[in-house]
Amino acid sequence: MAKEKKVTQITDMDQDFAQWFTDVVVKAGLIDYSGVKGFFILRPYGYAIWENIQSILDKEFKRLGHENVSMPVLIPESLLQKEKDHVEGFAPEVAWVTHGGSEELPERLCIRPTSETLFCEHWSHVLQSWRDLPMKYNQWCSVLRWEKTTRPFLRGREFLWQEGHTIHATAEEAKEETLQMLKVYADFCENCLAMPVVPGRKTDKEKFAGAEETYTVECMMHDKKALQSGTSHYFGDGFCRAFDIQFADKDNTLRYPHQTSWGLSTRLIGGLIMTHGDNNGLILPPRIAPVQVVVIPIAAKKPGVIEAAEELTAKLKAAGIRTKMDDSDNSPGWKFAEHEMRGIPLRIELGPRDIENNVCVAVRRDNYEKITVPLDDIANSVSGLLDDVHNGLFAKAKANLDSNTHPVHSLEEAKEVINTKGGFIKMMWCGDLDCELKMKEEVGVSSRCIPFAQEQIGDVCPVCGKPAKHMVIWGIAY
Amino acid sequence: MAKEKKVTQITDMDQDFAQWFTDVVVKAGLIDYSGVKGFFILRPYGYAIWENIQSILDKEFKRLGHENVSMPVLIPESLLQKEKDHVEGFAPEVAWVTHGGSEELPERLCIRPTSETLFCEHWSHVLQSWRDLPMKYNQWCSVLRWEKTTRPFLRGREFLWQEGHTIHATAEEAKEETLQMLKVYADFCENCLAMPVVPGRKTDKEKFAGAEETYTVECMMHDKKALQSGTSHYFGDGFCRAFDIQFADKDNTLRYPHQTSWGLSTRLIGGLIMTHGDNNGLILPPRIAPVQVVVIPIAAKKPGVIEAAEELTAKLKAAGIRTKMDDSDNSPGWKFAEHEMRGIPLRIELGPRDIENNVCVAVRRDNYEKITVPLDDIANSVSGLLDDVHNGLFAKAKANLDSNTHPVHSLEEAKEVINTKGGFIKMMWCGDLDCELKMKEEVGVSSRCIPFAQEQIGDVCPVCGKPAKHMVIWGIAY
Repeated sequence: MAKEKKVTQITDMDQDFAQWFTDVVVKAGLIDYSGVKGFFILRPYGYAIWENIQSILDKEFKRLGHENVSMPVLIPESLLQKEKDHVEGFAPEVAWVTHGGSEELPERLCIRPTSETLFCEHWSHVLQSWRDLPMKYNQWCSVLRWEKTTRPFLRGREFLWQEGHTIHATAEEAKEETLQMLKVYADFCENCLAMPVVPGRKTDKEKFAGAEETYTVECMMHDKKALQSGTSHYFGDGFCRAFDIQFADKDNTLRYPHQTSWGLSTRLIGGLIMTHGDNNGLILPPRIAPVQVVVIPIAAKKPGVIEAAEELTAKLKAAGIRTKMDDSDNSPGWKFAEHEMRGIPLRIELGPRDIENNVCVAVRRDNYEKITVPLDDIANSVSGLLDDVHNGLFAKAKANLDSNTHPVHSLEEAKEVINTKGGFIKMMWCGDLDCELKMKEEVGVSSRCIPFAQEQIGDVCPVCGKPAKHMVIWGIAY
Repeated sequence: MAKEKKVTQITDMDQDFAQWFTDVVVKAGLIDYSGVKGFFILRPYGYAIWENIQSILDKEFKRLGHENVSMPVLIPESLLQKEKDHVEGFAPEVAWVTHGGSEELPERLCIRPTSETLFCEHWSHVLQSWRDLPMKYNQWCSVLRWEKTTRPFLRGREFLWQEGHTIHATAEEAKEETLQMLKVYADFCENCLAMPVVPGRKTDKEKFAGAEETYTVECMMHDKKALQSGTSHYFGDGFCRAFDIQFADKDNTLRYPHQTSWGLSTRLIGGLIMTHGDNNGLILPPRIAPVQVVVIPIAAKKPGVIEAAEELTAKLKAAGIRTKMDDSDNSPGWKFAEHEMRGIPLRIELGPRDIENNVCVAVRRDNYEKITVPLDDIANSVSGLLDDVHNGLFAKAKANLDSNTHPVHSLEEAKEVINTKGGFIKMMWCGDLDCELKMKEEVGVSSRCIPFAQEQIGDVCPVCGKPAKHMVIWGIAY
């Protein structure tokens, strides 16, 4: 369990977490900065993580009956304006195209910040009867939001995401879809990214522009701040009315369908870095790691070592384990540091003595534990170790979340907890916007969600003293 | 072999091929028109074709050592201007972003028409030594070109594509890459899309803006016009010099790497429609068809029919054949027409008498042949039939290409052939731009390529009478 080696090129995470994060995304080769502020280049290693996220989620979306489509990247200003709340939410932060070639355009077009309006326009063309419902679409693309302050993964002017958009014959069905997709996100975060979530509903203040209800999965980062990791929205029939989308129901009456949307982005990569990383760099959860195992031959020039390492690598690959052998000229020490920086979940060292004993040495990235593993049945053993790394990462993150979530019963206590300990606070709330604003003003926290797992930790709202309606999770958010 | 049924909703392809094409893309559910001219919505069925194209090519790119990345969607004007030929080629047809939120930007940003300049900027940050080379990247994304006339798939202001970008230590290696990727495109067109290609080099006039050499695969459509289906470019070190990209070579000298790029787009979907379709609609090559087989129960209310159809469907699916059963309330005739319109390569009919005889009836979409197939070992039989459909489509397209490619030996003959027969002409050429321009002016054709398969069909250029350098394929192009 001994820590092997201190990589000194990156900032200490407990000294300056923000700088540590920036160091990691650059040094691990995930990101390069482009010439335009807030636009980041996803390098092969960073993009490969996104590809693994895509591949798992895309299968799950399709299993649940969703189909992928491709919508235009540009939205006419008049289309964006069709739903009042929506345009108010997004118009201030979009990029405007005003010229095509040498000509000024008759109407400004914005680069999509999200595509509800485009999907609605399309549905208004193609929806006819109840037989066409539900329409359950998804799109993988990039969107733009002209943010003032930007950071790799966490807040970019452009980011990659998926946006699901569905319409249904009834409100019930649409609500079911909204919650089902939140569950997909929650399960994905926990089971694939080893990130424990607090699922719940957003307050009205924190809802998506134009939504009736917004649901979220909130995660706690290493620095105890919150990261909203995926959201799912129920729109009722608001957009459908604004866009005049109707269908002939079974009784031949024209009705408005009910709508949802849900999205998850490359922000989540920022989230997993800030959840799992340590002072030696990135730690990738095995199920989305582009390379799950790196095999390092020790005393590689000794006869038979490279061959044995190749054989081991081939065996693991054949079992579907994403494995690379590093037989470069660098020293083992340099390689250990390099692959730790890149967060590879499991390192396997194989030297002449190991080969003699028919074993190899596996080192877990999450806790540096060294395990001697027999080479017989190695693929099964390594699979098990990768699960152990996943479980180890999850348990550590869960302990961080649980031990830093504090029930509080007064405004004073809330301030003290946030100032001295940080983390999330659980507090009852009356449901009034005024009290929510006061929490921001006086305590410096926003409501993260009204968690599904409610506890009756008091009867009144500690801010105003009126009867409490919900327990809310509050925190400082990215 | 009898034609089953005339679907009357679409225009006759021999009356008005352009209108037939538009009818097919809409009626088969591939495309919807968005509110912005030249921007098309890829509906689920259209996008699923692209996903299959992506999946096959992505695997092949990766097998050959390429890695995917994600570059920004916006390019600063100053960056686009760094390579002179490139900016001249693209600046007239880009969309310009001038405002972010409510602020005017200090510098205009264009939406990428292609990303050479972005890749070059990135390489100038990250390339250090010969050990880093080659860098072989690819990106799946959409690009914008502000075209005046637009048509679904064939010419959109936005289209989906992949763009490969690589740099190499030597010119030889880069040239090898350029030709290798053209070969990938050629094999893909022929083996997966059943589209025979004429591979070759573009003349200087037809080269990509900034390239030293451009290679192309040209296909002939049903109307005998040419479609450029994929291109691969060798840049030499021109961009690398303009962007000051250098690496320390093994001898410690700083050198400029040599660069390639290569791309293939959703245009190819337009190509396969125009290659294979008929008056009953789309015909999809089996290897990229989202649904390869549709199973239609006949007299579905008779006991056991649905169950037998379900069992058959499950068997085919289990064998990895993309199969759907249509047990909707519509009549078999309606279903036949519908699935023909959508181009499903093989239809299987299964009725009570078939079940009694332990057979089903397969109908090929390419030639309407009806084949009685034993239900035993059905998956193998269906696999074979799908190959037959592929081969049938390829043979028909190859016959179209071969019988409509005419060797000509004089300008007069060229004019006559183009005016009376159409198609491609093979003609010797001196290599001078003037003669190429004269061919356009007088015959109305552009040079499609200098094919790799050269024939010495004469000694002089029929336009000017000077000694001939190459045989060129000329035609009218989309």
